[in-house]
Amino acid sequence: MSKERYERGWRKLKAIHGKTGERVMQGLHPVAPDLARYIIEFAFGEIYSRPGLDLKSREIATVAALTALGNAEPQLKAHIRGALNVGCTRQEIIELIIQMAVYAGFPAALRAMNTAKTVFQERDRKVRASKGNRTRDSAIR
Amino acid sequence: MSKERYERGWRKLKAIHGKTGERVMQGLHPVAPDLARYIIEFAFGEIYSRPGLDLKSREIATVAALTALGNAEPQLKAHIRGALNVGCTRQEIIELIIQMAVYAGFPAALRAMNTAKTVFQERDRKVRASKGNRTRDSAIR
Amino acid sequence: MSKERYERGWRKLKAIHGKTGERVMQGLHPVAPDLARYIIEFAFGEIYSRPGLDLKSREIATVAALTALGNAEPQLKAHIRGALNVGCTRQEIIELIIQMAVYAGFPAALRAMNTAKTVFQERDRKVRASKGNRTRDSAIR
Amino acid sequence: MSKERYERGWRKLKAIHGKTGERVMQGLHPVAPDLARYIIEFAFGEIYSRPGLDLKSREIATVAALTALGNAEPQLKAHIRGALNVGCTRQEIIELIIQMAVYAGFPAALRAMNTAKTVFQERDRKVRASKGNRTRDSAIR
Amino acid sequence: MSKERYERGWRKLKAIHGKTGERVMQGLHPVAPDLARYIIEFAFGEIYSRPGLDLKSREIATVAALTALGNAEPQLKAHIRGALNVGCTRQEIIELIIQMAVYAGFPAALRAMNTAKTVFQERDRKVRASKGNRTRDSAIR
Amino acid sequence: MSKERYERGWRKLKAIHGKTGERVMQGLHPVAPDLARYIIEFAFGEIYSRPGLDLKSREIATVAALTALGNAEPQLKAHIRGALNVGCTRQEIIELIIQMAVYAGFPAALRAMNTAKTVFQERDRKVRASKGNRTRDSAIR
Repeated sequence: MSKERYERGWRKLKAIHGKTGERVMQGLHPVAPDLARYIIEFAFGEIYSRPGLDLKSREIATVAALTALGNAEPQLKAHIRGALNVGCTRQEIIELIIQMAVYAGFPAALRAMNTAKTVFQERDRKVRASKGNRTRDSAIR
Repeated sequence: MSKERYERGWRKLKAIHGKTGERVMQGLHPVAPDLARYIIEFAFGEIYSRPGLDLKSREIATVAALTALGNAEPQLKAHIRGALNVGCTRQEIIELIIQMAVYAGFPAALRAMNTAKTVFQERDRKVRASKGNRTRDSAIR
Repeated sequence: MSKERYERGWRKLKAIHGKTGERVMQGLHPVAPDLARYIIEFAFGEIYSRPGLDLKSREIATVAALTALGNAEPQLKAHIRGALNVGCTRQEIIELIIQMAVYAGFPAALRAMNTAKTVFQERDRKVRASKGNRTRDSAIR
Repeated sequence: MSKERYERGWRKLKAIHGKTGERVMQGLHPVAPDLARYIIEFAFGEIYSRPGLDLKSREIATVAALTALGNAEPQLKAHIRGALNVGCTRQEIIELIIQMAVYAGFPAALRAMNTAKTVFQERDRKVRASKGNRTRDSAIR
Repeated sequence: MSKERYERGWRKLKAIHGKTGERVMQGLHPVAPDLARYIIEFAFGEIYSRPGLDLKSREIATVAALTALGNAEPQLKAHIRGALNVGCTRQEIIELIIQMAVYAGFPAALRAMNTAKTVFQERDRKVRASKGNRTRDSAIR
Repeated sequence: MSKERYERGWRKLKAIHGKTGERVMQGLHPVAPDLARYIIEFAFGEIYSRPGLDLKSREIATVAALTALGNAEPQLKAHIRGALNVGCTRQEIIELIIQMAVYAGFPAALRAMNTAKTVFQERDRKVRASKGNRTRDSAIR
């Protein structure tokens, strides 16, 4: 039963965060494997696996909270990527970060917007890189 | 133009918060009418009036952020009501408060859940009261 | 297995928080029984049941954190009681709240000290009341 | 030397907070007299007694910080009174609370403004009461 | 009218933050030009342009709040520079950061002091560099 | 008397933080020697020198609070080292950081765990380096 939770959590983690999620969990292994297990079992295997709120709304809630709290840069980055992975548009992410200026002040919004900018630029680079590869591939053929 | 923003903000404020929103703004008038004006013009007339994110998602983001920040009980109450007013179900609000335990800890979630409980009970009382009135009305006739 | 965790958590919750803990969990039932379940299963059934750190040290850590965060009055109250229940002296609780002035500022320490004062006074009243009862009882006999 | 610091701190505490300051310190005595002593010796005897920043600017800084932190209602109240006592106008206090909306969000500003409103109303009542007394006094004579 | 606010805000932003302010706003343009616009129109065109509190006091309030909140390193840096630009002395900035130890703890003060140190060193380097240039210039002549 | 406090504080600072503590204090000297003095006199000479709570419990409280606050990376690092210096095991530190997930959320725990990991790795490197030296030394002889 606990194994089920773990596996459900692991699938959910990969659906939202992809390879990065796996890497963060592996980074915890030498020092605190149980913290990794709790994140997988509880956060992803329980909370994110609950019905009653769709995954896109869950990511909107998380990006909003992490922007407002302002103490978790790497998690904010991971969840901006996660939000894009589960169907949020860039515009929606930008909108909700701007909105947080109302509740947590402009510095919090400014900080999160710079994080969002970094994520968007990484994605654009990857797209360009893979297009470049394809162009080169077709040139080779 | 500024008047337009004010009126647009006032309509948006009433759409989300109803009479309570009006009352909070009026409470500010004797001491800081300009703070009320900024909330109406900027928060509601600008931010909440932007396209690019639907009002339900905006309220999800705000309830999540206020739950996580944990320093604004009356605003959290107002936005739980607001979320219900713009189409969130009680279950969705409960779900997103539970989710905040992951990002801001269980005390933050517990506190917000008690606020949600109070809002739901108020609504139930109002519904019962208005039903009671109708029953009595029909008994009179 | 999950049932085991729940029961282990419930015992731990009662060991630390007594009747108050039960009451808080019951208060959640009408609105979010699953949040109560997570607190019992995860916070108490997992975390507080881990070996590797004794229960007294765990309560010192929690009282310190809740004093510093300053956003969870009822939980701070519950954990000051909990700390006393698992073997902390009043003096130790006072010491660690004073120490928090260094890390979170004097208002945070002042606030927590007033909470501690309330808890101590409640305990003194109970002791006096039960002594009074016994005195009266023996007077009757 | 330490006695000097204590006395200098006590005078500064009274200059800023008047009777209320004394009362808060006395409230600490049964539970943690040393916390009261540190506040008097360190906060008032050292920090607020330093040259290099005038007392009015110090109170502006404190009201701003307590508004932004949002976790210390009674201290905010005490320092809004303190700011008025050392020469801030009501308008200046209102201005700096509004400004905090930019850095800590509107809920923080709204909350602090309500605290300011309460302080101003208390002062107005006292002025009216003392005027009333004088009027009655002159009527009696 | 909105254009007026924007221009007034832009002038105020440059008066406080100089070239750095412009650069931060330009950095926002590719991803969220409207957030830049709100900062200019609302924060600088409205709030910082209000009468009722002088600019030096406004910067004291902001440096205090950002030191206490501790989640906005780049903004703190910008406002320490801004405070110097509008007439605060280094000593006044040092004083108010020390004072924040009382309200937000020593780590918050320590962190902000290191930021202030960096700003002061940058300024000293610039002064030395420009003196060096002048010396070399006169040596050439 | 004040000199006594300073010397007592300096000894305590070195007992907890070793060379790193000295270095941080020296880093403050060019900009704010008085902040260094207050940290030594007040935090270490007063608070950490108080009887009534053992040094190990004090470090547990501080690591818990800094994990929960999440705004003081270098201090958290210094106090994880300090906790090890005064008798905490690595396992105890890992346990209390995991526990903070319950009160301040998983991102706060994750962040502190990465800091702990860095501290542990530094220590391991030092141990290996000094063993290497000894091996080489004995090889030479």
